This record gives sequence, C-alpha cells and structure tokens, in this order.
Amino acid sequence: MSYPLTPSDLRDLLRFTTTLARKAGNLILEGSEAISKASASGVNEKKNSVDLVTEYDVKVEELVKQEIKDGYPNWGFIGEESYSSGARHPLTDEPTFCVDPIDGTTNFVHGFPFACISIGIIDQKKPVLGVVYNPFLDHLYTGVKGQGSYLIRNGGTAQKLPLTGARPLPSLSQALVAIEWGSDRKASILTKKSDSFLRLAGDPDNGIEKGRMAHSLRSMGSAALNFAMVAQGGLDMYWEIGCWAWDVCAGVIIAQEAGGFVTGSKDCPHDGNITEEILTGRKYLVIRGIADTPNESGIDAQKRIAKEFYDTVEDVEAN
Amino acid sequence: MSYPLTPSDLRDLLRFTTTLARKAGNLILEGSEAISKASASGVNEKKNSVDLVTEYDVKVEELVKQEIKDGYPNWGFIGEESYSSGARHPLTDEPTFCVDPIDGTTNFVHGFPFACISIGIIDQKKPVLGVVYNPFLDHLYTGVKGQGSYLIRNGGTAQKLPLTGARPLPSLSQALVAIEWGSDRKASILTKKSDSFLRLAGDPDNGIEKGRMAHSLRSMGSAALNFAMVAQGGLDMYWEIGCWAWDVCAGVIIAQEAGGFVTGSKDCPHDGNITEEILTGRKYLVIRGIADTPNESGIDAQKRIAKEFYDTVEDVEAN
Repeated sequence: MSYPLTPSDLRDLLRFTTTLARKAGNLILEGSEAISKASASGVNEKKNSVDLVTEYDVKVEELVKQEIKDGYPNWGFIGEESYSSGARHPLTDEPTFCVDPIDGTTNFVHGFPFACISIGIIDQKKPVLGVVYNPFLDHLYTGVKGQGSYLIRNGGTAQKLPLTGARPLPSLSQALVAIEWGSDRKASILTKKSDSFLRLAGDPDNGIEKGRMAHSLRSMGSAALNFAMVAQGGLDMYWEIGCWAWDVCAGVIIAQEAGGFVTGSKDCPHDGNITEEILTGRKYLVIRGIADTPNESGIDAQKRIAKEFYDTVEDVEAN
Repeated sequence: MSYPLTPSDLRDLLRFTTTLARKAGNLILEGSEAISKASASGVNEKKNSVDLVTEYDVKVEELVKQEIKDGYPNWGFIGEESYSSGARHPLTDEPTFCVDPIDGTTNFVHGFPFACISIGIIDQKKPVLGVVYNPFLDHLYTGVKGQGSYLIRNGGTAQKLPLTGARPLPSLSQALVAIEWGSDRKASILTKKSDSFLRLAGDPDNGIEKGRMAHSLRSMGSAALNFAMVAQGGLDMYWEIGCWAWDVCAGVIIAQEAGGFVTGSKDCPHDGNITEEILTGRKYLVIRGIADTPNESGIDAQKRIAKEFYDTVEDVEAN
C-alpha cells in the first residue's frame, strides 16, 4: 500500500476492520456474560466485575492489536494503553489505527446494552475510516472518507446514513441533544457541566437565564455510539468534554460522511476542519447534517448552531 | 371472564396484548417514516412533524381502542385522551386497560429509536399485565402477575428477566441511574431536578454537598422503556417526576415480576405495595431486583436504597 491511502485501499481496510469489529464484538459479549455470572453469584467471588472489565478490555485490545500486527505490521496504533504508558507522540502523516476496545465501559459493567468497539484509521493526520460496532444490539456503523456512512442492523443490508436524509434544524430549541456526565465528578468540573445542561433544557421565559429550551437531553454513556447516533440522524447534536481521540476517531468520520459537522472546544475555529488539535483536544461538538434552505446552506446552519451552543454552555476543562 | 382475573385469563390477555402491541408497532414505524419524509422534504410541507406525531398518536390509540372494544367491550380504558377530556375517574376493582399509544414522543419525532407502545392492564386497582414494545429495535417486554417478565428480541425466544439474575447493589455509589429532564422546564421545577442530578453524580469529597458519586446517569427519554430496562437489569434504578399512569402501568408490573421494587414520591410508604395513590401519583422510583446477601434480604436492600435516594434528591412537584 502506498500513502496517502487510495479509495481502493480504504475499501480493503473497511473489510478488514468490519471483520475485526465483529470478532471483537463476540469477545465483548463473552465478557458481558462473564461479568453477569460473577456479579449474580455474589460479592465473594474471586474476580469482581471491575477486574473482569479490565480483563476483557485488555483481551479485546490484544485481539485487535494482534490482527492489526498481522495485517498491517508497520502501522501506528493509538489507544488508551499507548497513552497510559507515557508513549505520547504527535500524529504523523502515516496511517495509524486509533482504537477503543470497549467504549462505554460503565454500560458494559452494568449490562446496559450500549457499549461498542470503536476502530478508527487516521491518515495524513485526519480520520479517514471508522467502524463502530455495538454487539448487544448488533448495530454496525461504518464511515469511509469519500464513500459515505452506513448502518447494518442485525446482519441486514447496509442503510445509508443519515437514515432520514438531511432535515432542517432552525435552532437549539428544536434539538435533541446528547450530553454525558463523564467520570470527573469534582465540583469545579461538574457544576459547570450541570449549569450548562440546565441552560440547554431550561425555559428562558420561566426563570432559566440563557435557557434554550432544547427538545430534550439524552445520555447513553458511549461517545462512539453518540457520534454514530448523530450520523444516523436520531440525535441532532452531541457535546463531549474529557474523552479521548480513540473514543471519537471512528465516530468523527462516520458523522462527517453522513453530512455531520465536527468541531472542538469553544475557542477552535468552527469551520468543520478536523485539525490534530481538535482530534486530540478532548472537547468535541458534533452536529448532524442539516438541509440547505432557500436562506441558508446546511453548513452555515451548522456553524450557526455551533455558535449558539457555545454561547450557551460554560467552558469546562478536560482534566 | 370472571373477576378477579385468573392466571389463565392473564395468559389469554398476554396473547391479545402482544399481538396488539406488534400491530401498533408497525403503525408507529409507518408514522416514523412519514415524519422522516416530511421533515427531510423541508419546512414548507403541508404537514409538519408535530402534526404528524399527533396524527399517529391518535391513529395508534384508535387502533388499540378498537381492538380492545372488539375483544373486551365492557372494560375500562385509561389514557391521555380520557384525562384530557376531563373524564377522570378513580380506579375501580374492574379490569381496565391503561395505555400509552406512543411513549417517548420526542424520540419518535427525532428518529431516536427509543419509542414504544405501552399496554397495561389494571385489575383490583393494581397492574397485573404489561406489554412494552419498541418497534425500532424489535424489543418486546412482557410481565404478568405471578408469571414472570420476559424479553423477546428480534423475534427470538423469550428470555426471563432480569437477564443477569439478581445481583447485589451495595449503595447508590454503585448504581447506574436513569433520570429524565421531562417537559416542564420552568425554573421552579428544573433547578430542583438539576440540583438532584448533580448530587447523584457528584463527588462529596470534591466539593459536591450530599454527592453520591453514582456510577453514572442515563437518559433515554421513555418512561416505559426505562422501567423495562430496570427490569432487564441494565439500569439499577429510575427516578421519574411528572409522567402519568399510562406511561408506567405496564412498566410497573414488568419491573415487579423481574424482582423490581416500585414506589412513589418521597412521602409514600416505601414498602413495595402499589397503591392507587402511587400508580396515579406521577412520581415514581423503581429499583431492580437485588440479591439477598447473608446480612440483608434483597427487599431490605431495595428499601434502604430507596431511602438513600430520597435523602439525596429534592422533592420536585409534578405540575
């Protein structure tokens, strides 16, 4: 394979990554059953569920790394482990896998069926391929640069995303917005998030200052699946603070290829260009494809909604 | 049929209601496609999506009412329409259908695939049968008094709930908790809810007074599906303020038959007995089945968690 990757390379990689995602999905289901059995059998078992989560997180990552090593021996790999080992490197122009073996680990522990494997490929420092597979619902999302995004449910035929086609989105007040509580629960982080959620939901004419009265807020607990649901058109937007490149890399390209707009923190340029700073910046905003109207292009509407959003929420640190 | 209903009557009613739920589900899917098409084709269409939601809400309710009239001509019916027409009656000892034709209407409008039909039957003033069907995922939940709760996914075999068996739940800090933002967005309601959510999620050792540091909070936007997910064991508990008996009636018995504990507002007796006051009281707390441990029965653990929960959250009015 020569670089940058060609459309034909990407088609080959899509076959490789979807096969790999389904294998990993089977392992995730196996882990889920092991956790159920261990937790149902009581607290005195040798392995508690937290140990088992870690065990299966590692197992899935090993499976994925081994298959990548066999298939693409010289490619880079970005994941939680490479960061926690201190081996942080800036992105290069070379193709790099960017993988979260189990996204939505809290859901995975609890048997809440929204956990997935997320496999992204970065080329020339940008996401170019993404596969997100939820084995609990058998939902497989794919996105390939220049080749569109698709959803395959229960082994059926691939459906192009967004499922509904592009629709208008006049303002935040019409939006169904995904937000997450995250794992950082100290007051300095959580009160800002909570105040922001209150504004998104609150009625400005009934006592909520800066209230936007969004249609509602949703929290499913998986960044990758939230991105995928925005791509699908089932969520209008998703705001995330504190997750990592491997949580969102696949989701970014799946959303973009479905007409979605992805940007970073409040201070980034909101032009839809995914810079390295945005991809690794741990703050993300994704807005679904919006239809052009006689008065405004879809991309202008997305930029306008992004501005309205960041005028509403507080700037939260990703610690 | 003589009253009270016998186990055999309930088996017949289960066949009737599951068939009806699947028919209604097909109509909900048809409505969802109509809404997608209308909203994708732009804002100038004759029918906007809100009109279409109302249209399909009525269509599904008419289908359900007609089939009930044909099958059980003299039975009572409780639903949004009977309330909005001012015809509020206290419960009687007679069997009564309690139905929400589309629960999760905001999701339905947005194509977020968590909407369902919820069909409950009340006998002797208590829920005795519930069917909750999400046609988007093809998930059918059933619960029958004394006969257990089950989930049928994608036309497969019925799986007994909870899927995982009963597990321990030491405290709120170990819980995955469903909460909802609801439709009442004025400050007097929403700030209390928001403060309560902050306490549930917040770290008491890092500045959140009364923080419980729950594993996380989830919001899916359907009361019936939240009850069903608690029954399944995928959520540990669900708190709801402001929904109605028809939103939860089916979910109550599905949860109870899966070992779940259902109670009402803070001031109700939390003994697991569903009184008329609780069923129609518009405030609900449901906790999944908890395993007995050497030191504490599951029911005592549920009562303890309910008390811990109500010691944490603010009392919110259901306006």
